[in-house]
Amino acid sequence: MASLQAVHNIPEICAQLGITDVVLSPGSRCAPLTIAFARHPAITVRTVPDERAAAFIGLGLAQTQRRAVALVCTSGTAGLNYAPAVAEAYFQQIPLVVFTADRPPEWIDQLDGQTIRQADLYGAHAKGSFTFPTDTSHPDAQWHATRLVSEAVGLAEQFPAGPVQVNVPLREPFYPKQGEELQFGPVRVTRELPGRPQLSAAVLQELQDAIRSTSRVLVVAGQHHYDAALLLAVRRFAAAYQVPVVSDLIANLHLPAAASYDQRNRPLGRQDVFMAVPEPGLKEALKPELLITFGQSLISKALKLYLRNAQPAQHWHIQAAGAVADTFQSLTKIVRMEPAGFFDELSVGAPTSTSQLIAGSIPVGPTDSVEPQGFEPFEPSIIARADATRVASGTPRLTWPSTAQLTNTEATAKAAYLKPWLAAENWANGFLQEFMQQPTQPFNEFTAIYQALQHLPDGAALHLANSMAVRYANILGVPAGRTVEVFANRGTSGIDGCTSTAVGAALARPERPVVLLTGDVAFFYDRNAFWHNYPTPNLRVVLLNNHAGGIFRLIDGPRQQPELEEFFETRQPLRAENTARDFGLRYFAVSTFAELESALPVFFAAETGAALLEITTDSPTNAEFFEHYRALVRTSFSH
Amino acid sequence: MASLQAVHNIPEICAQLGITDVVLSPGSRCAPLTIAFARHPAITVRTVPDERAAAFIGLGLAQTQRRAVALVCTSGTAGLNYAPAVAEAYFQQIPLVVFTADRPPEWIDQLDGQTIRQADLYGAHAKGSFTFPTDTSHPDAQWHATRLVSEAVGLAEQFPAGPVQVNVPLREPFYPKQGEELQFGPVRVTRELPGRPQLSAAVLQELQDAIRSTSRVLVVAGQHHYDAALLLAVRRFAAAYQVPVVSDLIANLHLPAAASYDQRNRPLGRQDVFMAVPEPGLKEALKPELLITFGQSLISKALKLYLRNAQPAQHWHIQAAGAVADTFQSLTKIVRMEPAGFFDELSVGAPTSTSQLIAGSIPVGPTDSVEPQGFEPFEPSIIARADATRVASGTPRLTWPSTAQLTNTEATAKAAYLKPWLAAENWANGFLQEFMQQPTQPFNEFTAIYQALQHLPDGAALHLANSMAVRYANILGVPAGRTVEVFANRGTSGIDGCTSTAVGAALARPERPVVLLTGDVAFFYDRNAFWHNYPTPNLRVVLLNNHAGGIFRLIDGPRQQPELEEFFETRQPLRAENTARDFGLRYFAVSTFAELESALPVFFAAETGAALLEITTDSPTNAEFFEHYRALVRTSFSH
Repeated sequence: MASLQAVHNIPEICAQLGITDVVLSPGSRCAPLTIAFARHPAITVRTVPDERAAAFIGLGLAQTQRRAVALVCTSGTAGLNYAPAVAEAYFQQIPLVVFTADRPPEWIDQLDGQTIRQADLYGAHAKGSFTFPTDTSHPDAQWHATRLVSEAVGLAEQFPAGPVQVNVPLREPFYPKQGEELQFGPVRVTRELPGRPQLSAAVLQELQDAIRSTSRVLVVAGQHHYDAALLLAVRRFAAAYQVPVVSDLIANLHLPAAASYDQRNRPLGRQDVFMAVPEPGLKEALKPELLITFGQSLISKALKLYLRNAQPAQHWHIQAAGAVADTFQSLTKIVRMEPAGFFDELSVGAPTSTSQLIAGSIPVGPTDSVEPQGFEPFEPSIIARADATRVASGTPRLTWPSTAQLTNTEATAKAAYLKPWLAAENWANGFLQEFMQQPTQPFNEFTAIYQALQHLPDGAALHLANSMAVRYANILGVPAGRTVEVFANRGTSGIDGCTSTAVGAALARPERPVVLLTGDVAFFYDRNAFWHNYPTPNLRVVLLNNHAGGIFRLIDGPRQQPELEEFFETRQPLRAENTARDFGLRYFAVSTFAELESALPVFFAAETGAALLEITTDSPTNAEFFEHYRALVRTSFSH
Repeated sequence: MASLQAVHNIPEICAQLGITDVVLSPGSRCAPLTIAFARHPAITVRTVPDERAAAFIGLGLAQTQRRAVALVCTSGTAGLNYAPAVAEAYFQQIPLVVFTADRPPEWIDQLDGQTIRQADLYGAHAKGSFTFPTDTSHPDAQWHATRLVSEAVGLAEQFPAGPVQVNVPLREPFYPKQGEELQFGPVRVTRELPGRPQLSAAVLQELQDAIRSTSRVLVVAGQHHYDAALLLAVRRFAAAYQVPVVSDLIANLHLPAAASYDQRNRPLGRQDVFMAVPEPGLKEALKPELLITFGQSLISKALKLYLRNAQPAQHWHIQAAGAVADTFQSLTKIVRMEPAGFFDELSVGAPTSTSQLIAGSIPVGPTDSVEPQGFEPFEPSIIARADATRVASGTPRLTWPSTAQLTNTEATAKAAYLKPWLAAENWANGFLQEFMQQPTQPFNEFTAIYQALQHLPDGAALHLANSMAVRYANILGVPAGRTVEVFANRGTSGIDGCTSTAVGAALARPERPVVLLTGDVAFFYDRNAFWHNYPTPNLRVVLLNNHAGGIFRLIDGPRQQPELEEFFETRQPLRAENTARDFGLRYFAVSTFAELESALPVFFAAETGAALLEITTDSPTNAEFFEHYRALVRTSFSH
């Protein structure tokens, strides 16, 4: 085998293991990788010069496609510019296979250009780091080269998924002869078939008994990608046991279920509003005894602090594998199952129709009749099918309820706990609706976002940039019944790659509208997201430009410091018009409600190409208005 | 001691240890550090939102001021955006003290926002990583807190200098009460007084004997900051032993010596030209038997490859401490002295006047009568003073020559080896001069850079971006007699922070013109260098925009691949006009020689504020013209 053949096998192995997209950045040392990936017929290669943006674009692709994406960069600091996206991928559990070209080991630390110490470059923020053999003339080295790429892809995708580095030392020559055709394969890959951890029937029975016998059971969902089976299982569980489910937008449980399914068991989502109410009575009424959680991080700081303070007697976290955070300082059980499987197992045979599930009275929005384009469809009939399969497979599993329906005592206790949650959600819905219908001068970003969210295209992916954008959106929610999948880089909550991630999402699914809601600091930080030659006509950027890190004016500490404007807000004068011009984005600038209202439909129209809507507001006005909102929340609550 | 007091002591310790400048980026977790640094009366604090740019701006400040600069960022990926600059600082040996705010250890991996694993964040690219105590209520912890900051600053500055991380876990509250005054100190710091390693007189004598008895002794200088004492010592050594000294621009040995000093011993700098001549006879004539090197990396690939191939019998590298690279695969001795000391010791008592030093006939430029503003002045009289001090101190050291002048045999042999070096340099000087005076249509970047370099303001700092800018400039040199100090990020040779580094340099010395020569990929990559509120009226950016990574068209491998334009050059359409508008840079656009010639004087004029000169050329034309130049070099050489 010629020495470059081992490198040419890399894209073939990746392709066989399901990788379809590669983001590379130009360089010399990486030329053999570049050429091999660029010429592989089954792989789409895009080149992005700024490696920081390139890596987040790769992350956006992987997040959307739910499979590993490969990154390729040259030697030196190129790979270090990947580090923010690699850390985000690690904590958000997104599979990335990072190929860093390197000089061969004998040339490290010898003052050659673009040479750093690339082994284990991402330290504690990669799932693994592999070193490709420098010399592949020995057959064992060829086996090693093939095996480790296969292992790397497998490790990246293994739950919990994450980033993996493959460092590839390369000696010259880097280039095939003119006209020389590359050979791809044959190679042998190792595929991993993931199994699903199951609890024994006895343990499941124990859990069910605890759920039934505990009056105050609360389910809280952290960040999770949209998953039809999970969504259905959670609703069915909630209906069966009559327990409240609370979730942030990024849990993607707000998505409408199938048309024929019960809407009244939609999870609650107004916790940012009602948790801000200083009513000890309400707080007492909402206190859980048993908290069941799944997914990753929460946005709602109010809910997080409330639960830490509430100290439930039991907190179970449902997660199939990997390290588990004790987010509420009360963790008592780690349940090693997939959340969908857990909720499903505990409700096998549970009733599915509206008539059988009386779950209170959450007012519903417009009928959830639209499945998002490209989402896997699901119907209650899949429950029946799943139950049937489970019975047929003969494994002795739990059925719901194992002995009988909830007893009257159980049902009464559950209803008593569910009631204040539903009441709080109802109150918050009404409050917000009324608040937003008041005359809302002066122009401010809180109201502007609300109005923009009302125009979200059905089936869109909504990307929320960190800092205020994601917080505002979590308060305001998306309109009921709108099939909007929500993304945010909450693995590390950085502002550094939010735009690039949205660009990656737009490239991954060109038929789906991608809407990025972002502030000015996050936006200008990551302008190089647009610096490449791949069009994203489906991308819409809603930019809230208050010319500062406005968040610092909204929190008490910095607001009171003389350093506020220079060192916390960091006032910045940029407007986005020149950026829009540089990158050919249709540009809309608004600074009044009238302008906003007339711009929104044109801005969101599908056929007209990538667009940027710059909503200019004043940071002190925003702070004042938001304070007005918060004051009203604190004083308006009624039972 | 209140818990925040330990944090408030940090700027006081830094200030006492000589740190004057801090670059911080806005954040919440870092608030106590931000406030403490911002309020310290002896420290200049600047805030830059993009941490990648912030760190390179800090690097530019430290590189210019030749003392440590502190960086402060918030928790999460903020610190990872520092990584490219940290690696550059590590390999370029620039002292940075990086304060990364962090959550306290108990909250790591608990799904809180902006929380990653920050301990030892820079791995093999930091000299050390310290963890500030979380709780400083115990007196030992207070001692620890003070001691480790002192140690960190000391370690960063200790030769070879480099970056050090101090991770600072912080619990709330972050803010002092309104109107509360911070206390700075008293603190006790530990100062390190660096000693200079000395060889014994016997060992020095051995080295001198070897130098005298070896006919072919060559000195090659790698990257080094401008150092008057070193410059003088090297010239004196070269004159005393009649040996050629070859240096790239970034060695800063091209700077004019004091007015009264001999210009004919100026080091050679045309190796990029004459080493490209395929004359085996010349190559043979230049071959060293003893190679003496100092400093860091070389730009000239031709010289590097030549020396690797030449395999001198002896290669000594002069470096006081730290790991030494075997750049030419021939290293035989590591001499643990400072280069200035080494060259000085070996020529104590050597003659200093022109009449005594006959060193061939390198034509000199205009009289070197101008000392760069702010450079430390030096005069031959310092030699006499230094010699006198040395004698007075009574240490038995070598004097030059320890026994006699060079013998006739020695002198004849040395002259025979020096001659072809001087001839090659002379030929290259003449060739370039003639080449540049020919009619030079079509418009191309090689010639355009030459013309821009002719207008360099005296006393300027010239920053060369990586990729082609630094290579072109190393071929073309700066006009003889011009006091231009040259900088380039050759530690890692990345393009990622070249502009920010120049911005840092401009901030560090507002009275000195800073000229950045850069290509379009490096420039647009690092546009956030300008995204802050600190004016740099002394900054001039010469942007060579060929709308691509033009370097890839100049090297054989990629030039012949079908992937050239998309995946190597990565054609990019941006022009800098919108960027200039965004950041208030005076903007000059030229695409002909006539436009260039008329723009240059206005562009470089001192009084008119920061400016950007965009020289637009065509990448294939540039490649063709440069090939024409290279062909002429190969065929024009005559003895």
